Amino acid sequence: MLPVIVHSVNELRAMLPENKHVALTPTMGALHEGHLSLVRHGRQLADINVVSVYVNPLQFGPHEDFSTYPRELEADCARLENIADIVFAPNDAELYPLPQTVTITLPPLADELCGRSRPGFFQGVATVVCKLLNCVRPQTAIFGKKDFQQLFLVQLMVAQLNFPTKIAAMPILREADGLAMSSRNAYLTSDERQRAVLLPNALRTAAAAITAGEKPTTAAATVRQQLQADGFVVDYVECRNATTLTSTASGDIVLLVAATLGQTRLIDNIEIRCPNAAKRELA
Amino acid sequence: MLPVIVHSVNELRAMLPENKHVALTPTMGALHEGHLSLVRHGRQLADINVVSVYVNPLQFGPHEDFSTYPRELEADCARLENIADIVFAPNDAELYPLPQTVTITLPPLADELCGRSRPGFFQGVATVVCKLLNCVRPQTAIFGKKDFQQLFLVQLMVAQLNFPTKIAAMPILREADGLAMSSRNAYLTSDERQRAVLLPNALRTAAAAITAGEKPTTAAATVRQQLQADGFVVDYVECRNATTLTSTASGDIVLLVAATLGQTRLIDNIEIRCPNAAKRELA
Repeated sequence: MLPVIVHSVNELRAMLPENKHVALTPTMGALHEGHLSLVRHGRQLADINVVSVYVNPLQFGPHEDFSTYPRELEADCARLENIADIVFAPNDAELYPLPQTVTITLPPLADELCGRSRPGFFQGVATVVCKLLNCVRPQTAIFGKKDFQQLFLVQLMVAQLNFPTKIAAMPILREADGLAMSSRNAYLTSDERQRAVLLPNALRTAAAAITAGEKPTTAAATVRQQLQADGFVVDYVECRNATTLTSTASGDIVLLVAATLGQTRLIDNIEIRCPNAAKRELA
Repeated sequence: MLPVIVHSVNELRAMLPENKHVALTPTMGALHEGHLSLVRHGRQLADINVVSVYVNPLQFGPHEDFSTYPRELEADCARLENIADIVFAPNDAELYPLPQTVTITLPPLADELCGRSRPGFFQGVATVVCKLLNCVRPQTAIFGKKDFQQLFLVQLMVAQLNFPTKIAAMPILREADGLAMSSRNAYLTSDERQRAVLLPNALRTAAAAITAGEKPTTAAATVRQQLQADGFVVDYVECRNATTLTSTASGDIVLLVAATLGQTRLIDNIEIRCPNAAKRELA
């Protein structure tokens, strides 16, 4: 069965009885297997499995790819056959009938990592996620770990604003060669697509070195040098505490990268279990 | 029957089945007949009538009356006998287990009127209301018109963040002499209490003058002069559009006042139906 497409908030609410388990996977569409793995998780949990498809203008900067971001609702619905019940695809006038003057403010972490080169990005994400949670009222909302910082900030928002929604965090899905799946991979030329694998390869090598005892800062510096040598423009390469996303050197580590190849900004990360990390410098 | 007192969010959620009509009246306790009129409205609508009693630290400035604000939970519960089912009275650790770094940001109106002399006040109110709405998930939340600007900003937040809650706006309740009921009236000395009635009297006189054709700005200036002559320290006296709270001169008007008598800050307002207001200057 194909999912039912719903454009209006009121229609959507009328279709969601209050005593059913509703799961929500928020997406911007252009769905790939990574998204579908989240939706399949929702299918296992929920009586009613909802996928939102909305390219949220609030999270794009003025020079970013809002206008060219792929929009392919019909193909997305076909991909969701038999795994989603409802596709919630509001238009801008439905979700932002007036200029959005009420927004979610996040802690300074939202201005670090991806937030440094994308000012306002996480505030835009948090605001639309807040709206979507209130439209759908899911018991569970499902996010992927590829957007690690986004996942962290959404979990923080849900906890601090007491949303009655459980956030499910799902592992990164990768192509056969190791590149993390992303809708933006479609922007890569075939030459760039081949070279893109150097990004996850560098992360894996660094993770192995850290596990073997290398200082995280040294490993991160090596990743940066490698990527620059391979023609990437590096935005950041950073080791952070995997639980708090601070630079506090205790507990498990996550190594996060953002880098541009040609016109395409890629992000990726790898978690590193570090039983002895208390002794290691992160920054 | 006395209401059940619940201190924990999880316990509260377990007591609220999803298919019942739940109403919420958020209060800071020290309940008076004004609060009770809101709660009685909830009683008429709801299967489960909830009153929250929480003195929210986030909405008090460093020199305000957070520590001295009256706390009388037992007496409040007695006042709620037979009209509320549940009193939700979390402590600070329950509602703010960690420093609150995720907050609601409001439009510039939040820095006008009461927001000008109370910076951060409405952000604190909006954040706790957001949290309470997520804890209780009411179909209806009930607010009084005495806090007119607060009511407006809560309505704006609920609309722009798509909360599935209807906001019920209830009229101001007044003492026999006309003073708007307020928990802070208890701070007034008996001499101040007698003089306090000059505030609603000045508003009524101004409203009659505006209805009779006087310019709103002139009427507001007269109120200011009268209150100052009567020993009030005036914070603001302003006419605003009653629907938008802007200074746009069309539609109905609300005349809003904040003034301090002795140590006690009083607010009040009066709505004025103005079929011909399009021609009038507000600011």
